[in-house]
Amino acid sequence: MKNVHQPDWDRQSRTGFPEAIYCARKSPEQINIIIEDAVTRQRPLFLTALGVETYQGLDRDNSAQLDYDHVSATGIVGKTAPLGQSGVGIIAAGTSDIPVATEAQRTLAFCGYDSTMIHDVGVAGLWRLLERIEEIQQFRVIIALAGMEGALFSVLAGLVEAPVIAVPTSVGYGVSTGGRTALESALGSCSPGIMTVNIDNGFGAAAATIKILQSAHK
Amino acid sequence: MKNVHQPDWDRQSRTGFPEAIYCARKSPEQINIIIEDAVTRQRPLFLTALGVETYQGLDRDNSAQLDYDHVSATGIVGKTAPLGQSGVGIIAAGTSDIPVATEAQRTLAFCGYDSTMIHDVGVAGLWRLLERIEEIQQFRVIIALAGMEGALFSVLAGLVEAPVIAVPTSVGYGVSTGGRTALESALGSCSPGIMTVNIDNGFGAAAATIKILQSAHK
Amino acid sequence: MKNVHQPDWDRQSRTGFPEAIYCARKSPEQINIIIEDAVTRQRPLFLTALGVETYQGLDRDNSAQLDYDHVSATGIVGKTAPLGQSGVGIIAAGTSDIPVATEAQRTLAFCGYDSTMIHDVGVAGLWRLLERIEEIQQFRVIIALAGMEGALFSVLAGLVEAPVIAVPTSVGYGVSTGGRTALESALGSCSPGIMTVNIDNGFGAAAATIKILQSAHK
Amino acid sequence: MKNVHQPDWDRQSRTGFPEAIYCARKSPEQINIIIEDAVTRQRPLFLTALGVETYQGLDRDNSAQLDYDHVSATGIVGKTAPLGQSGVGIIAAGTSDIPVATEAQRTLAFCGYDSTMIHDVGVAGLWRLLERIEEIQQFRVIIALAGMEGALFSVLAGLVEAPVIAVPTSVGYGVSTGGRTALESALGSCSPGIMTVNIDNGFGAAAATIKILQSAHK
Amino acid sequence: MKNVHQPDWDRQSRTGFPEAIYCARKSPEQINIIIEDAVTRQRPLFLTALGVETYQGLDRDNSAQLDYDHVSATGIVGKTAPLGQSGVGIIAAGTSDIPVATEAQRTLAFCGYDSTMIHDVGVAGLWRLLERIEEIQQFRVIIALAGMEGALFSVLAGLVEAPVIAVPTSVGYGVSTGGRTALESALGSCSPGIMTVNIDNGFGAAAATIKILQSAHK
Amino acid sequence: MKNVHQPDWDRQSRTGFPEAIYCARKSPEQINIIIEDAVTRQRPLFLTALGVETYQGLDRDNSAQLDYDHVSATGIVGKTAPLGQSGVGIIAAGTSDIPVATEAQRTLAFCGYDSTMIHDVGVAGLWRLLERIEEIQQFRVIIALAGMEGALFSVLAGLVEAPVIAVPTSVGYGVSTGGRTALESALGSCSPGIMTVNIDNGFGAAAATIKILQSAHK
Amino acid sequence: MKNVHQPDWDRQSRTGFPEAIYCARKSPEQINIIIEDAVTRQRPLFLTALGVETYQGLDRDNSAQLDYDHVSATGIVGKTAPLGQSGVGIIAAGTSDIPVATEAQRTLAFCGYDSTMIHDVGVAGLWRLLERIEEIQQFRVIIALAGMEGALFSVLAGLVEAPVIAVPTSVGYGVSTGGRTALESALGSCSPGIMTVNIDNGFGAAAATIKILQSAHK
Amino acid sequence: MKNVHQPDWDRQSRTGFPEAIYCARKSPEQINIIIEDAVTRQRPLFLTALGVETYQGLDRDNSAQLDYDHVSATGIVGKTAPLGQSGVGIIAAGTSDIPVATEAQRTLAFCGYDSTMIHDVGVAGLWRLLERIEEIQQFRVIIALAGMEGALFSVLAGLVEAPVIAVPTSVGYGVSTGGRTALESALGSCSPGIMTVNIDNGFGAAAATIKILQSAHK
Repeated sequence: MKNVHQPDWDRQSRTGFPEAIYCARKSPEQINIIIEDAVTRQRPLFLTALGVETYQGLDRDNSAQLDYDHVSATGIVGKTAPLGQSGVGIIAAGTSDIPVATEAQRTLAFCGYDSTMIHDVGVAGLWRLLERIEEIQQFRVIIALAGMEGALFSVLAGLVEAPVIAVPTSVGYGVSTGGRTALESALGSCSPGIMTVNIDNGFGAAAATIKILQSAHK
Repeated sequence: MKNVHQPDWDRQSRTGFPEAIYCARKSPEQINIIIEDAVTRQRPLFLTALGVETYQGLDRDNSAQLDYDHVSATGIVGKTAPLGQSGVGIIAAGTSDIPVATEAQRTLAFCGYDSTMIHDVGVAGLWRLLERIEEIQQFRVIIALAGMEGALFSVLAGLVEAPVIAVPTSVGYGVSTGGRTALESALGSCSPGIMTVNIDNGFGAAAATIKILQSAHK
Repeated sequence: MKNVHQPDWDRQSRTGFPEAIYCARKSPEQINIIIEDAVTRQRPLFLTALGVETYQGLDRDNSAQLDYDHVSATGIVGKTAPLGQSGVGIIAAGTSDIPVATEAQRTLAFCGYDSTMIHDVGVAGLWRLLERIEEIQQFRVIIALAGMEGALFSVLAGLVEAPVIAVPTSVGYGVSTGGRTALESALGSCSPGIMTVNIDNGFGAAAATIKILQSAHK
Repeated sequence: MKNVHQPDWDRQSRTGFPEAIYCARKSPEQINIIIEDAVTRQRPLFLTALGVETYQGLDRDNSAQLDYDHVSATGIVGKTAPLGQSGVGIIAAGTSDIPVATEAQRTLAFCGYDSTMIHDVGVAGLWRLLERIEEIQQFRVIIALAGMEGALFSVLAGLVEAPVIAVPTSVGYGVSTGGRTALESALGSCSPGIMTVNIDNGFGAAAATIKILQSAHK
Repeated sequence: MKNVHQPDWDRQSRTGFPEAIYCARKSPEQINIIIEDAVTRQRPLFLTALGVETYQGLDRDNSAQLDYDHVSATGIVGKTAPLGQSGVGIIAAGTSDIPVATEAQRTLAFCGYDSTMIHDVGVAGLWRLLERIEEIQQFRVIIALAGMEGALFSVLAGLVEAPVIAVPTSVGYGVSTGGRTALESALGSCSPGIMTVNIDNGFGAAAATIKILQSAHK
Repeated sequence: MKNVHQPDWDRQSRTGFPEAIYCARKSPEQINIIIEDAVTRQRPLFLTALGVETYQGLDRDNSAQLDYDHVSATGIVGKTAPLGQSGVGIIAAGTSDIPVATEAQRTLAFCGYDSTMIHDVGVAGLWRLLERIEEIQQFRVIIALAGMEGALFSVLAGLVEAPVIAVPTSVGYGVSTGGRTALESALGSCSPGIMTVNIDNGFGAAAATIKILQSAHK
Repeated sequence: MKNVHQPDWDRQSRTGFPEAIYCARKSPEQINIIIEDAVTRQRPLFLTALGVETYQGLDRDNSAQLDYDHVSATGIVGKTAPLGQSGVGIIAAGTSDIPVATEAQRTLAFCGYDSTMIHDVGVAGLWRLLERIEEIQQFRVIIALAGMEGALFSVLAGLVEAPVIAVPTSVGYGVSTGGRTALESALGSCSPGIMTVNIDNGFGAAAATIKILQSAHK
Repeated sequence: MKNVHQPDWDRQSRTGFPEAIYCARKSPEQINIIIEDAVTRQRPLFLTALGVETYQGLDRDNSAQLDYDHVSATGIVGKTAPLGQSGVGIIAAGTSDIPVATEAQRTLAFCGYDSTMIHDVGVAGLWRLLERIEEIQQFRVIIALAGMEGALFSVLAGLVEAPVIAVPTSVGYGVSTGGRTALESALGSCSPGIMTVNIDNGFGAAAATIKILQSAHK
């Protein structure tokens, strides 16, 4: 097992958040070993950035263990807890943001938290956001996703009481290529209460959300 | 007169827009000569980026010829035409955008076009913009100014029929320093109909507005 | 129909500009549903960034509904209005700018505006531009396209009375890769009256042009 | 009162967070008017980026109304609520981060939340952080501040259960000038649960903290 | 042999470091000639960035001469000296850094120096690093590898006496794409004693290590 | 004379170009010593970036030895050769480019080459350039200077047979701040025959011009 | 022939440099038409960035007309003049720079100028450059090519009297990716007499060289 | 002593390198307290980035304790050990690099290591470097300093056996402003054995040198 990633099975007991594996540069062989290790230890495991091609290259026995979602490129090993009512809203500006939004939603579900996703409410058509604003104002924590110029973050944070975790997405072209413009819009926003994670980091936004929800019980 | 800027007095007849002088790197001595030349030829002249210190360094005779505004750092030589009703709205997100907004307003006035300025309608408090949106929807052309994350551009363009000329301003700190984030927000916006000029270029936005208004009479 | 983009069929009545769909990250399945929805509602629909491969992956019934152009990667559902004389000129520096220029031309046509395209008039051979400058000076609104160093924008705007909407294109290599140099040339130009849209955004330039033309009738 | 910023006195009732004024580009005259308005309306007011020089340029009557702190360049008008126990920790890597840390602390206090500041625990001498880690692990929400390379964020977030709000500071030279390296370290961190605000934005970190604390009571 | 790279067979006698060939843009034909030349001259040769595809395109006779490693994409021609005890530690934050770490290890071995590799000790789970810190503190020279935000460099350098050569890796996404954030973290670190090489440059780190080890005998 | 710059008096015999001293970070004391050294050795010396303040801080005896020009911030020690007819044209887009243009002109004169300066021929008013194009077409070598968007370089190089050395200047604001846009316009130009030097490097452009002129006699 | 590039057959008579076609974004169909046009008009034509795949997609009749070189991806239509002795040296740091060097050499040959190419003289092994420096010092004009950190430009320009045209190449990885570091090394060099063209622009360097050679005869 | 930096007096026993204080953002009051603390504890202390103005603002009693050097802006409290022969060479390209070179030299001396400084050996005049190369080849460790384009690093590392620690300096203008070009030249160099520290970080280079020298005795 030389040179194979050794999962940090102690993480949950230390930080309240279980081990997750970022699969982007891992081979099917490496992931096979990790899944087998999780199954043997009976530990739940969350896999991100697991592309369809890599997924299909896994051993049958291992892929059969996975609850796989190709939209978000995530896989779950093991049973997840029944979902409690958490009051988390996931607000995506456009359809292209749904893969990252789903990564966040699946991460929350893996840890036992439900969430509601609302999409196609970008500010180019403000009425769409305003039509649903009362529903949105009920959420306790909001994960907001937008690419292009990321104006949704500022508008949303100015309309709600909940903390807003901005996830800039790499959706766009020209100056917006790669998500930098959306990222800087979130960081430079004049609406107080916005916090930002890395571009396309739906997983990180969910992890932060969980820490916020858990801190309420301290 | 060696090495002194030679104004392009033919410009108006060729492009429909009179000569304007950018004073940022010019000495009072150089500007004195240009003003005297304009007065002698009885040509109207518009001076931008004319800081208070440079203005105060001008010869008395020349500064007396100037209609000077210290907020926008602009000066006008000669009589300007009476203002006609042009239907131009200048919408500024915050107070800090007013100097650039005033540069645009003074440029329009220099060419005979009136305009209405509305400020403190940034999207962090969306209700402020929405309270005045019906008035804003009446404008034929809109110059919008915002620094920070520049979310105003997208929201505004999604709510009006008029073309929107975005002027990103160098208002902000951290990632927003220098106006780059606001600029890229304008360019990357998903609201159709936004056009952008250089950071802090109130003059250029007004020049483009005038060309739009003139094109309507062709 | 979960997670499928829900077109904003109200957009035209609210902003004067109909719904358009950016297809770059959408699957044939998602686009099939949107086309069927448009056909059912009898709404015209404009599709941009619809690559040949995605187009060929559409259901036959749906691709048959499309007026598709592979140069500009655009598709139109529904009949477009007969074209009126709008006085719009589309001036492209080189042959490589033609795809983006055509996106602009098709967008205009979709909304009922005709336009004249002139290409291969980059400033490396200035005589080519000057040979046609009288024709170009007749246009009411000009969409200019250039990649590389984007010098065309400044030269053109100094020679015409019409407002100039600059579309920097991602044509070039080395420092010009991706279109940044052309973009900044447009923004930093010393010719007054230039407005800029995002790199390769022929659609946005056309949308702004239409708003300018409509504002003339207010 | 033309061209003076009009505070948004409705903000608190709408978003749960009171109006704050960013003073960086405002003149003493403009700030005088805002303070008088707050005093007249008996509204509490928080002023940020209020440099010593501007502060000293205020009318005596107005500066006497201010609880001013020169380290953080903040001023408070009106009585603040007695501080409740909030469980907020403010962890600063070095001494140079204290001004921004104090901006956060004063913002929290303005809204009625106490906090504990710990500084000089940068990771170059890890034992300093580890000596105090048990105290730090008790906090419900952590605001972390670091300039230079910002390694504190990752280390800290890996050791605590609380959500960590990273405030990169503009402390550093060479590649670290302006705070970009610390910002990207926070965003690119592999420790889950970090959220980031703009460089030097102690105010924003406090605002987000307050929203998190308030969400716990929903 | 026109236009084929001419290896610098004098290098070792001049700089104490033998010739190495960077194969990234070379064709199998070009590499065949270089290998044959080395074999004929009986000179050891180190090949980097030799991808599997190029390796498989070599003539059988030549690939048979190679000690090839597909993880690090390196090849060795000729016998390497028996390894002496050098006291070099190679510390990799994560599994994805192993290819670059192996390039460093193979370069050291090619020149007769052994090394110990330790991986999966990134600071997100600090306990993993601390568990092995006593072993790490025994090394005379440390090569440290990390992508993402590169916080390992600062933490490690604060805990050891040995010089630390940081190798930022191109592991990461969003702001960390390409390795820039890890690079700047290494350069901007406040832990004294860190030196940095180019992104993914395991070869260069090993070369510098060898020069350090050799300088001890002067 | 410890830590004082030691001029390279051998340079001219080796490279055909005499020693020049860049004074930007040097104190009057350091420059005094260098001037005295030149006077003693009877060597001509060219000083660049010698600001007025530093010049005025020199010892009287030394400043009296200098042919100083405050526009270009250059000083010459020693007699310069009588100027021969070199056919060099220096074409500056605007008045603000004159200081850098003069640095080039003075460097040429120091080495015995005359030159003709033409300014205010930026392409925003193309007729100004075209009015003088026949004169410009007579030059054997052209040094062109422009800030802002640097469109002059492309237009000029498309109209002349002479090689064009582009000197981007740090004239501009917003995206043009610092001269990057003009630099990239020169590099990315589609007019063949443009070569570029560093921003504001009038000295370097002149040095290259001299090498071109000298190469004609080989 | 709609939307096909219309070559500028007048270029040579106007600028002394014949038409060249940049083929990177052109289809075989478009290039077929251009070649046929050249053949019909009996005009020589130079094609750059003509990849092997595109070349193979041309009509047999047309590819048979081409003198094609796959290393430099260039093609020549028509007979080129016999080569005269021009004294041009092409100095390439490494083997990877040979394709761009060959583009320069072929451009020169197309216009009737011979040149001598010397490669593998990068400064990492300075002796290699010094061994051939006397030969290099005989050249009248030098085109220098280097990627990575581009140190060759400074060293070379300090050793020769000829003007040096630097061509940074996109050879390198990490910070050197894309050629930016080599480009800025050329521009920022402290050796006088270096002029720079765009990254990988061997064609442009040759065009400038030809203009320099021609200017010697004026 | 609230909010005053608390020196890490344990650092030397833990890492072999004593505490140093970076004074750039500290007030004279803060530095007074730190010096008094050092004097009371009889601990040696090294102060960097201590500008003349701050130095002069210190209490007389404290400034009298300092061995202050205004060139490098460094101060030393306490007696330093007698210097042993360490074989360290400090090679500076130009005079402007001397302040940073001296920071390195003073840091070494503070820890008991001597060093030899050689300056004005930039590669624009290669003979200067080559004249002294035999002396330079005797050093065991080399600290090299260069701004502008940083070509010295590559040339030097190709000529010596010693490890080379590159210190890019913020000497230059245009593209070289701030030291980025020199930094990337060091990182992207093709000469093996170069390691790099932050721009202007003479202190860090000396700290790494000391760790290298100490590792030789392990």
